[in-house]
Amino acid sequence: MSYARRLTADAGASAGLLEVRRHNLALILARLRSDGPRSRAALAAETGLTRSTVSSLVGELVARGLVAEGATARGAVGRPSQQVDLDGSGFHTVGAEVNLHYLAVTALNLRSEVVAERWVPIDAARLGADVVLRRLAGLVLDVTGALGRAGSELVGTTVAVPGLVERATGRVLSAPNLGWSETPAAATMRGLLGDAGPLLLDNEANLAARAEVGTDRRGVRDLVLLTGGVGVGAGVVVGGTLLRGVHGFAGEVGHMQLDPGGRRCGCGRRGCWETLVGLDALLVAAADEDDPVRDPALDVRSRLLTLRARAEAGDARTLDALGVTAGWLGAGAGVLVNLFNPELLVLGGYFAVLGPWLATPVADTLHERVFAPRSGGCRVEPSTLGYPAASRGGALEAQARVFADPTAVGSSHSVVHPTVVPAGAPA
Amino acid sequence: MSYARRLTADAGASAGLLEVRRHNLALILARLRSDGPRSRAALAAETGLTRSTVSSLVGELVARGLVAEGATARGAVGRPSQQVDLDGSGFHTVGAEVNLHYLAVTALNLRSEVVAERWVPIDAARLGADVVLRRLAGLVLDVTGALGRAGSELVGTTVAVPGLVERATGRVLSAPNLGWSETPAAATMRGLLGDAGPLLLDNEANLAARAEVGTDRRGVRDLVLLTGGVGVGAGVVVGGTLLRGVHGFAGEVGHMQLDPGGRRCGCGRRGCWETLVGLDALLVAAADEDDPVRDPALDVRSRLLTLRARAEAGDARTLDALGVTAGWLGAGAGVLVNLFNPELLVLGGYFAVLGPWLATPVADTLHERVFAPRSGGCRVEPSTLGYPAASRGGALEAQARVFADPTAVGSSHSVVHPTVVPAGAPA
Repeated sequence: MSYARRLTADAGASAGLLEVRRHNLALILARLRSDGPRSRAALAAETGLTRSTVSSLVGELVARGLVAEGATARGAVGRPSQQVDLDGSGFHTVGAEVNLHYLAVTALNLRSEVVAERWVPIDAARLGADVVLRRLAGLVLDVTGALGRAGSELVGTTVAVPGLVERATGRVLSAPNLGWSETPAAATMRGLLGDAGPLLLDNEANLAARAEVGTDRRGVRDLVLLTGGVGVGAGVVVGGTLLRGVHGFAGEVGHMQLDPGGRRCGCGRRGCWETLVGLDALLVAAADEDDPVRDPALDVRSRLLTLRARAEAGDARTLDALGVTAGWLGAGAGVLVNLFNPELLVLGGYFAVLGPWLATPVADTLHERVFAPRSGGCRVEPSTLGYPAASRGGALEAQARVFADPTAVGSSHSVVHPTVVPAGAPA
Repeated sequence: MSYARRLTADAGASAGLLEVRRHNLALILARLRSDGPRSRAALAAETGLTRSTVSSLVGELVARGLVAEGATARGAVGRPSQQVDLDGSGFHTVGAEVNLHYLAVTALNLRSEVVAERWVPIDAARLGADVVLRRLAGLVLDVTGALGRAGSELVGTTVAVPGLVERATGRVLSAPNLGWSETPAAATMRGLLGDAGPLLLDNEANLAARAEVGTDRRGVRDLVLLTGGVGVGAGVVVGGTLLRGVHGFAGEVGHMQLDPGGRRCGCGRRGCWETLVGLDALLVAAADEDDPVRDPALDVRSRLLTLRARAEAGDARTLDALGVTAGWLGAGAGVLVNLFNPELLVLGGYFAVLGPWLATPVADTLHERVFAPRSGGCRVEPSTLGYPAASRGGALEAQARVFADPTAVGSSHSVVHPTVVPAGAPA
């Protein structure tokens, strides 16, 4: 064997061992994320790695700033042992959402704790993509600047939009309610944010569904999330995985035609689902044109709280409008529940704010419309995450890279380079 | 350590090794199924098992009658080597479908070759569940009796029905077109067939989709199959896996309400998809009441061929009726393609027989109705499996147990029991 060939073979072997080590670093992080702080001994027992391998891995994760050593816990038997846990202080990820009536930015640390949140009402359709993205970037820089000064590094951003997204190119192919078409939103945001780690673009309903299963609905593996805004979006989780389809376009529900004789939709047809349950339909039914709840210059959240207060006070027009919305919401949801047989239908966006007047009638409509007994076991619940669900989901999605490959973050000079030995392989 | 505890520990270790061996037997079978006949050396290279382990595993599979040793192939280099392949002769599985107009039985050997197929026209709704299941069992016994006399053993059966199935209990919860409700079809069939291996019950559209990805559409991982009969069913494959939902009720599409002012459906509402594209709607539009194509006493296949001949001859009424069917088929398919973003929409059942007049207009409607550009990349194709798709899928589904655990079949006395040694573990 020639010297060159031996060199290549050795490099290959090292690459393999580094790969194993990366995998094991990720294994430790995943365990700390799902099960909380624990001792090295517990990690060794749970992962099947040796004690010394776990110590070496934890050492690297501490050096990279991903893991912190915490309190010493005294178990029932044996020596007291030091707990290790995810370190929340060194890194954060950002989700940044464009919607018709607002911009929202959420920053999470790696413990998935919200470390910053911003909300700005806007009238996005009037402002156009360039102005909207400049304002969004300003919000992100505001948040990450403050976190940076506090010693936390931005390691990934996901931008959420209510429209059809081509994730591979970072373009919004079509967001009719925003008036965006073929908009290179990811490239624009990268230009505005400068060197701010990887930036991805995604659909807001998909990210809101991601947030639901990632935070509030752990354990639920089959879920349909509906986001109510001017349009209607669906994020569908099947067997624990977000449904994306072959080219990432799955979950388009807004133009499901439920009332062919109904109101004209922006898409050119009549009676699409969003003409029936979109926010505009509700507001037109619930209030006169000069009513403040219909003033797009006011914050949509305060307008919804006004509407909510009217419903609580028993205002007949408001309750009638909510009843009509609930009926159509149930009719469309019935199609989805018949198709997916989910465990849970989550009402997000404005549907969540008005959940008390929507969830029960929607569940009743499902009982009538779903072919399987007892709606196939599907429960209906308002989201408890509220409006920031999509930006929260965006920040969670941006964490994925770090949890898949912990060596992607942490400056290498701070790492005490471990010797790469077969001890890194599973025991 | 007490004697008893040591015994338990030993039994545990043996169970672990047996488990590894079962896994490795399955690995060899899976490789032969997906990639065809090959040498022991090739199997060793592809699975990462040692040559001697592969020889031992192949030996057991030959003894169990699952694998046969075949021709000797001479490679480019090295010694000639004997090929091994799945053995088609010793075992078969059966799919047995109840539909409104016919019963179908397909038997496959373990190479997934059709070794028997039966088709009997019936008027199932008129006959009732007991008579229908007795006739179906008679067909299965006819097929398996003949195969048994030829030396092939039945190792599993799946019964397909057009309705809502509770797989865990083997009951048809609801099949309105058949008039079945809470029907214990699996138990009835087990009673009629006697000791005939495991018998499962499933939905016919799910099994037809199973047949599509298992035979004709290998490589397609996101697919929606529509079966056209008196009702309409959907089988959906997401990322290579059949969509079942949390309780197995996914894929209900027949009562999607597309035309709220339309014809009354059996479910009580108006304008459900199956009132628009079910076979009865087409036949009523295409022919007068005394026309033989509407005579339920005649074989549905010959009635469809008559209709097809009329379309080929340019008969205006037939073509008009097909045009209306295609329009509504596309409208409903648009909802599904927007939701799932599949690579392929397969038209099955009677839609396949009339595919030349349906596929192109459906694709055109998708272009109008699907929000993603170019229908999200979705192609529309008639099934090439034809009516026996569901029974074919049932026989494939029944194979799953054997391929998951090859020790489930083959009489143990014919097996030269291998020594259980760690050689069975991955190298």
